[in-house]
Amino acid sequence: MTAMTPVAPGCLKGVRVLDLTQFEAGTSCTQVLAWLGADVAKVENTTTGDPGRRLSPTNKKDDPYFLNYNSNKRSITVNLKNPQGLAIVKEMAKKADIFMENFAPGAIERLGLGYDVLSKINPGIIYGQVKGFGEGSPYENNLAFDMISQACGGTMSITGDPNGPPAKPGPTIGDTGTGVLMLVSILSALYQRKETGKGVHLQVAMQDAMLHYIRNSFGITSKTGKPAPRTGAQSNSGGNPPCNIYPCAPGGPNDYVYVYTSRGNPQHWPKLLEAIDRKDLIGDPRYATQAARIEHEAEIDAIISEWTRKHDKYEAMRIIGAAVPAGAVRDTLELMNDPNFEERGIIQKIPHPTHGTFKMAAWPVRFDGKPVPVKAAPLLGQHTDEVLKDWLGMSAEDAAKLRADKVTSA
Amino acid sequence: MTAMTPVAPGCLKGVRVLDLTQFEAGTSCTQVLAWLGADVAKVENTTTGDPGRRLSPTNKKDDPYFLNYNSNKRSITVNLKNPQGLAIVKEMAKKADIFMENFAPGAIERLGLGYDVLSKINPGIIYGQVKGFGEGSPYENNLAFDMISQACGGTMSITGDPNGPPAKPGPTIGDTGTGVLMLVSILSALYQRKETGKGVHLQVAMQDAMLHYIRNSFGITSKTGKPAPRTGAQSNSGGNPPCNIYPCAPGGPNDYVYVYTSRGNPQHWPKLLEAIDRKDLIGDPRYATQAARIEHEAEIDAIISEWTRKHDKYEAMRIIGAAVPAGAVRDTLELMNDPNFEERGIIQKIPHPTHGTFKMAAWPVRFDGKPVPVKAAPLLGQHTDEVLKDWLGMSAEDAAKLRADKVTSA
Repeated sequence: MTAMTPVAPGCLKGVRVLDLTQFEAGTSCTQVLAWLGADVAKVENTTTGDPGRRLSPTNKKDDPYFLNYNSNKRSITVNLKNPQGLAIVKEMAKKADIFMENFAPGAIERLGLGYDVLSKINPGIIYGQVKGFGEGSPYENNLAFDMISQACGGTMSITGDPNGPPAKPGPTIGDTGTGVLMLVSILSALYQRKETGKGVHLQVAMQDAMLHYIRNSFGITSKTGKPAPRTGAQSNSGGNPPCNIYPCAPGGPNDYVYVYTSRGNPQHWPKLLEAIDRKDLIGDPRYATQAARIEHEAEIDAIISEWTRKHDKYEAMRIIGAAVPAGAVRDTLELMNDPNFEERGIIQKIPHPTHGTFKMAAWPVRFDGKPVPVKAAPLLGQHTDEVLKDWLGMSAEDAAKLRADKVTSA
Repeated sequence: MTAMTPVAPGCLKGVRVLDLTQFEAGTSCTQVLAWLGADVAKVENTTTGDPGRRLSPTNKKDDPYFLNYNSNKRSITVNLKNPQGLAIVKEMAKKADIFMENFAPGAIERLGLGYDVLSKINPGIIYGQVKGFGEGSPYENNLAFDMISQACGGTMSITGDPNGPPAKPGPTIGDTGTGVLMLVSILSALYQRKETGKGVHLQVAMQDAMLHYIRNSFGITSKTGKPAPRTGAQSNSGGNPPCNIYPCAPGGPNDYVYVYTSRGNPQHWPKLLEAIDRKDLIGDPRYATQAARIEHEAEIDAIISEWTRKHDKYEAMRIIGAAVPAGAVRDTLELMNDPNFEERGIIQKIPHPTHGTFKMAAWPVRFDGKPVPVKAAPLLGQHTDEVLKDWLGMSAEDAAKLRADKVTSA
């Protein structure tokens, strides 16, 4: 099977985004706007650009980190400390539908590009800001990183073993998880603006955004009056073995299978026993009820592991998955190299000027059965003149003069 | 300080959502549409409704789980197995802007409400579906749950200790994390429809959606050609101690503080030493460089823990956070009872007919400085007649007859 040809849904065609984001919480938001058809002009400083391009000083070319959050955008470099540079960005703000930034608290206002300024220039602008902590929080001036927001926002408290310390979820929910909530608000405001013409000031804090992803656990606290506990591999409510991550052959770091049995379905346990060739244990009072299984959880896990260790994870998923829900634990290399993801356009191979071919996860939602196309992230300043022409109608001569005066670069 | 009064931004005023979702991946999507002003009619079966209402058979009233994902919606009960009931939902589909469902694979089509049917009735309908695995995946007919998608979608492979097995992230990224990506696509399509009038068929798989949240880790695989490793509490790239979750006084399960030092900022280490009263170690060659700190990671963690154990987590956050990024690990009870969240409208107290006052996390993004108001989740069938009147112009007599005929209930 050949890869399905992505088709641009063009939902946001004609929408202009003035993008002053960096790293991940902001870039992940404007990334999706670009995927869905908006013209995203990423404004970067003239020397090194978004620090996400060079995560370490030894990095000679744009880091894959940058590529993953900035595809389909155009890069324009502008020196914002230069009055002429600042004036250019303000001119761009007049033409923009959306403005987005995630600098440290107070930084964008000190640059002279706060909401008070831009909303006067362009009352229709949708102005988005991601910060670490919310305005009015005791920590509103603190810097945050993904992990800080995950500590303070509760996600770590519900991750890890029941008897161990809190643990960090691997996914960057603090960054991308926040960016996507801002994105939803931007799109809702954009829809409304078609009728009202009115802009809006949108703000989200990474700490606050974490609460959106742990509402199950808040539900548990509502019932018990206690902090939601850590439940290891089980669902957040816990107490329903077997429901765990079991080791498979040949024993590598990600050779595991997740096996789920539902408290709502008493048939799951006997069906699982049948799948793992232990029909002899069906009806055994040591394991017959949920209460009994809680008491003998370690034994149950040993019984299941004895079988799973003899099978590779995909075979285990196939056999157990035919009886009760089960899933192989897949690592990033397996996912990246699985041809099925490429065939379906969930992962796409794109040409890049310095990386040759670059493989990356695309927008996972399909429009009329088709995946959304991904284009390479821009090199620093790759589209400076092009954006000045498209957005401001600037001539090539004027653009060259700006470059000679070090207001821009390319 | 009193709680800030929420103000409805009304972005989606006049938008009608025909909501056939249940549990979380679908309900979390339509929940936000309701928060942002859409009229969400949740269609439920006439007997027990969304199974999320009663997670266990002993549950006498709607579970907090249900309340957290269905506020601001209206509930209409319809027996879809009854031809008259099915006809009502098709009439509603004519009036709907958005249709959303997350049943098991094939179920909505068997009910006679597939995209092929509804798009003929209403060519402008935006039709959203969440499934476990994508069409064209070898597992496309498998059921999925949050944990199965997190196993198969890679989030477990990057969570946990470097030397331990994969671990489950606590946040329900598989469910809510997928719902929010569908939401973004729905809103983009809605914006486009203002111009084209055309509907669209949107589909997302929970497994595929997970890739969106682990793009940092894909970046690591792009660089190394290896699966992204588990890095415990460190950032996904790892290798930069100290960067860990440290125990605090008085030693409870969530008495910990996260401390971050950046590889990009060599001043972090001496500043941290100063904050924890260990200026004597500044310049000590055992710890002076990143390479040295990797070699002496256990010693470094012991030095920091010695100090953190003597302080509570908030004091530790305050003192260390003034020097390097730091964050107290907060649990769901602490977050729920923190008056600052209520003051800022991030958590709201709402009256509920059977729960008295219910506290829940609201939409965390502020519109012009104001939080979005939350209203109680509906009781089963609470708005049946009201929705029939508002959507279909049905008289009270006709609505009563439908109820008498068991086509609906209230």
